[in-house]
Amino acid sequence: MTSLLTQYQDNDVVDNFALITSAEVRLTKTGKNYISLTFSDRSGDLPGNLWDASQEQINEFIQGKIVKLQGVRGAFKSQPQVQITSLRLTQAGEPNNPADFMAHAPVKTADLDAQLNDYLLMISQPTWNRLVRRLFKQYHDQFLQFPAAKKNHHAFNGGLAFHSLSIAQLAKSVSQQYPQLNADLLLAGALLHDLGKVIELSGPIATEYTLAGDLIGHITLIDEQIVLAANELHFDLNSEEMILLRHVVLAHHGLLEYGSPVRPMVMEAQVLNQLDNLDASMQMMTGAIEKTAPGSFSTRIFGLDNRRFYKTESES
Amino acid sequence: MTSLLTQYQDNDVVDNFALITSAEVRLTKTGKNYISLTFSDRSGDLPGNLWDASQEQINEFIQGKIVKLQGVRGAFKSQPQVQITSLRLTQAGEPNNPADFMAHAPVKTADLDAQLNDYLLMISQPTWNRLVRRLFKQYHDQFLQFPAAKKNHHAFNGGLAFHSLSIAQLAKSVSQQYPQLNADLLLAGALLHDLGKVIELSGPIATEYTLAGDLIGHITLIDEQIVLAANELHFDLNSEEMILLRHVVLAHHGLLEYGSPVRPMVMEAQVLNQLDNLDASMQMMTGAIEKTAPGSFSTRIFGLDNRRFYKTESES
Amino acid sequence: MTSLLTQYQDNDVVDNFALITSAEVRLTKTGKNYISLTFSDRSGDLPGNLWDASQEQINEFIQGKIVKLQGVRGAFKSQPQVQITSLRLTQAGEPNNPADFMAHAPVKTADLDAQLNDYLLMISQPTWNRLVRRLFKQYHDQFLQFPAAKKNHHAFNGGLAFHSLSIAQLAKSVSQQYPQLNADLLLAGALLHDLGKVIELSGPIATEYTLAGDLIGHITLIDEQIVLAANELHFDLNSEEMILLRHVVLAHHGLLEYGSPVRPMVMEAQVLNQLDNLDASMQMMTGAIEKTAPGSFSTRIFGLDNRRFYKTESES
Amino acid sequence: MTSLLTQYQDNDVVDNFALITSAEVRLTKTGKNYISLTFSDRSGDLPGNLWDASQEQINEFIQGKIVKLQGVRGAFKSQPQVQITSLRLTQAGEPNNPADFMAHAPVKTADLDAQLNDYLLMISQPTWNRLVRRLFKQYHDQFLQFPAAKKNHHAFNGGLAFHSLSIAQLAKSVSQQYPQLNADLLLAGALLHDLGKVIELSGPIATEYTLAGDLIGHITLIDEQIVLAANELHFDLNSEEMILLRHVVLAHHGLLEYGSPVRPMVMEAQVLNQLDNLDASMQMMTGAIEKTAPGSFSTRIFGLDNRRFYKTESES
Amino acid sequence: MTSLLTQYQDNDVVDNFALITSAEVRLTKTGKNYISLTFSDRSGDLPGNLWDASQEQINEFIQGKIVKLQGVRGAFKSQPQVQITSLRLTQAGEPNNPADFMAHAPVKTADLDAQLNDYLLMISQPTWNRLVRRLFKQYHDQFLQFPAAKKNHHAFNGGLAFHSLSIAQLAKSVSQQYPQLNADLLLAGALLHDLGKVIELSGPIATEYTLAGDLIGHITLIDEQIVLAANELHFDLNSEEMILLRHVVLAHHGLLEYGSPVRPMVMEAQVLNQLDNLDASMQMMTGAIEKTAPGSFSTRIFGLDNRRFYKTESES
Amino acid sequence: MTSLLTQYQDNDVVDNFALITSAEVRLTKTGKNYISLTFSDRSGDLPGNLWDASQEQINEFIQGKIVKLQGVRGAFKSQPQVQITSLRLTQAGEPNNPADFMAHAPVKTADLDAQLNDYLLMISQPTWNRLVRRLFKQYHDQFLQFPAAKKNHHAFNGGLAFHSLSIAQLAKSVSQQYPQLNADLLLAGALLHDLGKVIELSGPIATEYTLAGDLIGHITLIDEQIVLAANELHFDLNSEEMILLRHVVLAHHGLLEYGSPVRPMVMEAQVLNQLDNLDASMQMMTGAIEKTAPGSFSTRIFGLDNRRFYKTESES
Repeated sequence: MTSLLTQYQDNDVVDNFALITSAEVRLTKTGKNYISLTFSDRSGDLPGNLWDASQEQINEFIQGKIVKLQGVRGAFKSQPQVQITSLRLTQAGEPNNPADFMAHAPVKTADLDAQLNDYLLMISQPTWNRLVRRLFKQYHDQFLQFPAAKKNHHAFNGGLAFHSLSIAQLAKSVSQQYPQLNADLLLAGALLHDLGKVIELSGPIATEYTLAGDLIGHITLIDEQIVLAANELHFDLNSEEMILLRHVVLAHHGLLEYGSPVRPMVMEAQVLNQLDNLDASMQMMTGAIEKTAPGSFSTRIFGLDNRRFYKTESES
Repeated sequence: MTSLLTQYQDNDVVDNFALITSAEVRLTKTGKNYISLTFSDRSGDLPGNLWDASQEQINEFIQGKIVKLQGVRGAFKSQPQVQITSLRLTQAGEPNNPADFMAHAPVKTADLDAQLNDYLLMISQPTWNRLVRRLFKQYHDQFLQFPAAKKNHHAFNGGLAFHSLSIAQLAKSVSQQYPQLNADLLLAGALLHDLGKVIELSGPIATEYTLAGDLIGHITLIDEQIVLAANELHFDLNSEEMILLRHVVLAHHGLLEYGSPVRPMVMEAQVLNQLDNLDASMQMMTGAIEKTAPGSFSTRIFGLDNRRFYKTESES
Repeated sequence: MTSLLTQYQDNDVVDNFALITSAEVRLTKTGKNYISLTFSDRSGDLPGNLWDASQEQINEFIQGKIVKLQGVRGAFKSQPQVQITSLRLTQAGEPNNPADFMAHAPVKTADLDAQLNDYLLMISQPTWNRLVRRLFKQYHDQFLQFPAAKKNHHAFNGGLAFHSLSIAQLAKSVSQQYPQLNADLLLAGALLHDLGKVIELSGPIATEYTLAGDLIGHITLIDEQIVLAANELHFDLNSEEMILLRHVVLAHHGLLEYGSPVRPMVMEAQVLNQLDNLDASMQMMTGAIEKTAPGSFSTRIFGLDNRRFYKTESES
Repeated sequence: MTSLLTQYQDNDVVDNFALITSAEVRLTKTGKNYISLTFSDRSGDLPGNLWDASQEQINEFIQGKIVKLQGVRGAFKSQPQVQITSLRLTQAGEPNNPADFMAHAPVKTADLDAQLNDYLLMISQPTWNRLVRRLFKQYHDQFLQFPAAKKNHHAFNGGLAFHSLSIAQLAKSVSQQYPQLNADLLLAGALLHDLGKVIELSGPIATEYTLAGDLIGHITLIDEQIVLAANELHFDLNSEEMILLRHVVLAHHGLLEYGSPVRPMVMEAQVLNQLDNLDASMQMMTGAIEKTAPGSFSTRIFGLDNRRFYKTESES
Repeated sequence: MTSLLTQYQDNDVVDNFALITSAEVRLTKTGKNYISLTFSDRSGDLPGNLWDASQEQINEFIQGKIVKLQGVRGAFKSQPQVQITSLRLTQAGEPNNPADFMAHAPVKTADLDAQLNDYLLMISQPTWNRLVRRLFKQYHDQFLQFPAAKKNHHAFNGGLAFHSLSIAQLAKSVSQQYPQLNADLLLAGALLHDLGKVIELSGPIATEYTLAGDLIGHITLIDEQIVLAANELHFDLNSEEMILLRHVVLAHHGLLEYGSPVRPMVMEAQVLNQLDNLDASMQMMTGAIEKTAPGSFSTRIFGLDNRRFYKTESES
Repeated sequence: MTSLLTQYQDNDVVDNFALITSAEVRLTKTGKNYISLTFSDRSGDLPGNLWDASQEQINEFIQGKIVKLQGVRGAFKSQPQVQITSLRLTQAGEPNNPADFMAHAPVKTADLDAQLNDYLLMISQPTWNRLVRRLFKQYHDQFLQFPAAKKNHHAFNGGLAFHSLSIAQLAKSVSQQYPQLNADLLLAGALLHDLGKVIELSGPIATEYTLAGDLIGHITLIDEQIVLAANELHFDLNSEEMILLRHVVLAHHGLLEYGSPVRPMVMEAQVLNQLDNLDASMQMMTGAIEKTAPGSFSTRIFGLDNRRFYKTESES
């Protein structure tokens, strides 16, 4: 019976369908070609090398192809890998949809969509409501499918919407505990803050930064979209409500050195930044702890200052 | 009709009972004695100088005395002050309880007590429950009356308990949103994390650091109390549950440079640190915004990197 | 014979027309009103206090008024001030144009305009030429009159255009020395980089930050203007040429901690940042050295890490 | 004639008894098992790989075993290694005591014990004398055998006691030069400051951090021990002498970012921190210089900001 | 037809004369000798390994030898390398001058010499003119041949003089734009600032730091040379002109953490530092961009905070 | 009976001879002249203002004059001051030697001289011995009289020699404890390290930085002196022994950001830096603690990161 790729233990026999998510032709020290491959399914990745690769294999086994993979699970420098014993492209009648081999948000796309819409409806301030509504409509599909990052936190299909939804949920409970907050502004910021990533990143598969992503960045890109949308909706860019919304979004990284051009100077901007950090921490810690044995420490988490986290004995 | 001390505007006539919360005898440039006084009531502070002070006045008008104060509200270097026209000690039949002149948490002491008890009951893990219960009992009165700090956030009577309660409330809603958290551990940490302040600070009135506060600090002082309590309850200091609880409390400042001897290395420690920061931010921003006119910026907030916060036009 | 305000020495008799650029009513320690005034002419500022100010004087001597000032130059805490002996508003036939009392760029407005236009004509790339041309036209008057900053470098009438011109001139000579640079891109960036300050700042007199200036900042504000102009001109925001121009402008502060949302990642962005720093340093050092006696050190320059600069014996 | 493991040069024949201090089974690129071994004797370590390891060998050659090793000294990536030609477990009549194969402090255990005791006797203040005495007695054996660190300075058997003794010796001569210091307090701090390492570390062989070491840290762990000892001895935790002793120990890392919860605020705490740094520097530099050829630079020392140190031509 | 070493693509046949610029004998994992070689010509470097090297080959193929190299270009870990098929020393009649195989400044040595001399003549201040003249004469040959650094910017034959010339050229145009600068002082500083590198570095081939370079550094070494030269010329070390020249040179790294013992405190020192940075940036960016394909990013540049730079589509 | 200036308590009558160490004519807010004076004797300083100063008084009471001072000790902003009731220049027969009114090292000049000479004799390496001897001879008087700093540590007459002696004493005991140190090199560095201060500072009275002190700094100035002395003694600047001595002196500030052009890279340089810090800390702490009441905290010490230090109850 077949396991998922990341569930195998050392010396297990691997016999799976998998998606090739990276394929690089390299040279051994002694000058022979091999292909360094990453195989993926919805549980994650497993790397493996195809030694003495022929030119035909180099042409066949490229990023985006679905393959039938056979081999044995081992480890090289403490990282799991598969020793390939057989590799071929899939044939008619075998799995052929790349999307089936990608990690997904733990919520279905339709549910993400519905829940985000519910939060949108809670924004009673009309300018903010119309602006968020317009941008949600314009980027509907990308918003639901993109990851929230190339790596680190929420780097999976639907991660962007899942993360935004999480922040909206936190925003709601925090607004209830602290009524001095403007719940509408906080919620509008929560829903929009990372939407620029649909322009910054190339898409849900083999995610890369676009040129605009590298040279302009997602914070300025969402500000651009807010400005253009406000222009079309004939909103006054100099009104307090437009300045506040842009500020909350621009300042959400909290510190200039994290890429926000201004630091939070309204309460909702400060809170959005702290909720964003909280959800990112939760996601990174949860991802690392899931792969850790009880009573031991996780690998170091880059996004949390390279700290390791301890999984208690009692956690399953 | 008399206002509270901080409600007066420029040139208003002041005629109030007030508590002297600091009194310092100084010399003018030309060598005469005056007393630099701080008058307080439950709304806050108002400073004023008593010029040409006699030795009798120097003896009378000292910290902790309640006085009848008359004068005119002005400002010196943009800070409000009162020009004193008359000052005397209160007499029989006039207010004489210092506690009536101190700022209080916006929740009554009995309610704080009841709600904290409710959260204590939610800790189902028996070791943590018994430890928190014991320390709550041992420091019951101080915990309910102390401020959470000498200045900055929650620097008012009952501020320590009010802040702890706030964190407990956040801990509960965050545990519900992220079930991978150990709700008991997070809650126990929330309730205990700042309890060492009852040893670090001198008390609710004219709060100063104690010698142990200065040279040992509240984080190590609560750890000491946990160790002594565990010793009496015959808990094993080397058990995972004791190490976890101490860790969550020791790490709650998040960064070594903020005085935690270890950085968070379990999920609940990381979350407690972020919730602590969130509640402290909310309290500091709220306090500053309350004193700010709509459409303008607050004074700079030291605990938030000297940022000013903008109060929107529409806020009352 | 009358000197300019900053040319007086200790104990000189002052008898000048001057512009009041700030006026603040304060209280002495003993509770009397006085007005803390700043008098200005084109040489700079001289503060002075009007003691025992009457309500009528408080109403009359406000920011923006031109006055006849008489007194004696002294110093308080090493800062020059004037002891006022007589102060009155100007009358018919006396100077009445505030602009005559403000510091100006050392180049006439018409010359600034002509020279900036010459540099604009040197941009041969059509997209960048049309975009700069449009924004120059739209903000023509403000660009020529605004200072480059509230204080620090180029904080004088016309300072913004004068600084931009200086950078353009440096850009030209550097492009000639290093032909690998794209001279058009560097020049377009030089002309546009600080134009957002016409929205960030309130104007040439009594300059303050606007709400958009505080909460959004001049870097994002000029990006907004470029986006809107490109939209109207039907330029493609995803074209390389639009991304490059925006990048060069967005990155011109060089470091994230100085407010750029991205660091320079094309050669021209890196060079623009270094030329911007060079001209700002030159302006700050020149301003400080001008007020320094030969063979001694200037006051500390905030924008240059609080360094003092030495004026050599031989400099006049 | 046999050399010690670290004394061999390239191409020398190795024929030694050695202790296996680490053994990790790994996979070659082509999927075969090998054991990555570290062999040790009292001169230090020499790594080597056992290729094509059988299951029996994997079971035999584990950490803690003493073996007869034969091979040739070579180097891989500039690090010495041994090419193993023969490897077997020792037999009856051959060396069998692991302690004989470990690096030791350059002073015999009995001498360490005696000298530490001499310094203990110099503490004339009775509270501190009794506290140090009690903890020395309680942790006598561990204190004499543990290293002072997992790596970096004094990472050898007995290193903890040797380092403490060194500090005590420095403390004595510095107290004589500066009589304003409280020699008793400085000496008590010197003797106790690192004692928490007997709880933080797992032991003298294959030293690892314990869970309490990772999550609580040696500074808080020795404070815990002081508190418990004081409790049993019925000392008052609020007395100045107890607060001072705890402070000196808590602050000995000097900076919060190095893990002290408070910075030094009594003279003796400041001096202890500087002496601790001095002895650690001496130990790290000496260790690195010993392995360096005259007229060349050592490898980089992590604990000294990655600096290299120069060994002069004339040093032997 | 033979290409230069860095012009080959993957799988091209290599057949070149080349200079060995580094040769290191190493051990394979399985214990066999090989030589890790770097081959160079004026286009740059190409590494390659000679497997199973005999003792004779180890003796022959050493740094500084010119060889006939045959093989195939490949890549290992994304770095180009050559798989060697044949290697021999050159014979009579074949190239034998190492200087022909080194990267050079893009200006001929004689032209560098002439142009530097022209700038020297522009220094009209006699003390500075004579001092620069003397040191130029004393270190004439080294100055024209040394690189400006071991790696990073201007790390090629003649790089030191080329960089100094570039700065002189910038100094001239900046002095013209800002007449408040002392052009003589700035120029003298430009010509001398890096001359200490002829003592700090070992020479143009296989450049290493000398002992004085490591332990004293090029900034103090040029100061030493200025002091000795002034002493011989009987200049007064306490005169303002000597102090200024030394200051401008000592301060040219701008920040203490970059090795200047003082920060710039005269205008010309500040400007020299900024021009030095500008030319270094230009050189590093140009070098990286030259090796980059249009429409893609360069490798990370260590000396520019590890940033990557984008080469536009239109650049050739 | 007259006390020393710093021994008076509040309200004591002052009647002393004193040296004026600073005198600055200032303006009151209301425009009258007064002289802000600092009176000094060997115990330290006491400031006071002479109100309504006449021109004659302004001419008389200048820095360097000895006066008969009468008044009352008070405090302004917690700083002691004297309210002057009478002030006149001293007359014939009254004290007239400024040196009698300056703080001195706690060791007599002749003893400093003798002890420094003893340490010089301990340097057995001939090059270093001759170099130190020559520079000691050349700067004999200044070395014995200068302070070690304008303020902070050892800022008293003879402070430079006293501090150097202290380091030499520490160097000796540390060399004995760690025989791997080169005692000669450490001692030569200890004696020379701060000698450049005799050029950096203006002298023992009213100490200021010289121009060379500001623009070159004492570290480069002593290096200059070592270079010139070595030149005259015909020592080879490229010998290891000259490079080592210069390195130890150049690196003694430890960090580049503290003004050393190189970081310590030989053991003796590292140790000298740590001993220098230790003695500076001791001097600053001792100075602050001396003025502190038992059981309270000192004022903040700038040179120790603004920390306050606690003086124990039992210290006299």
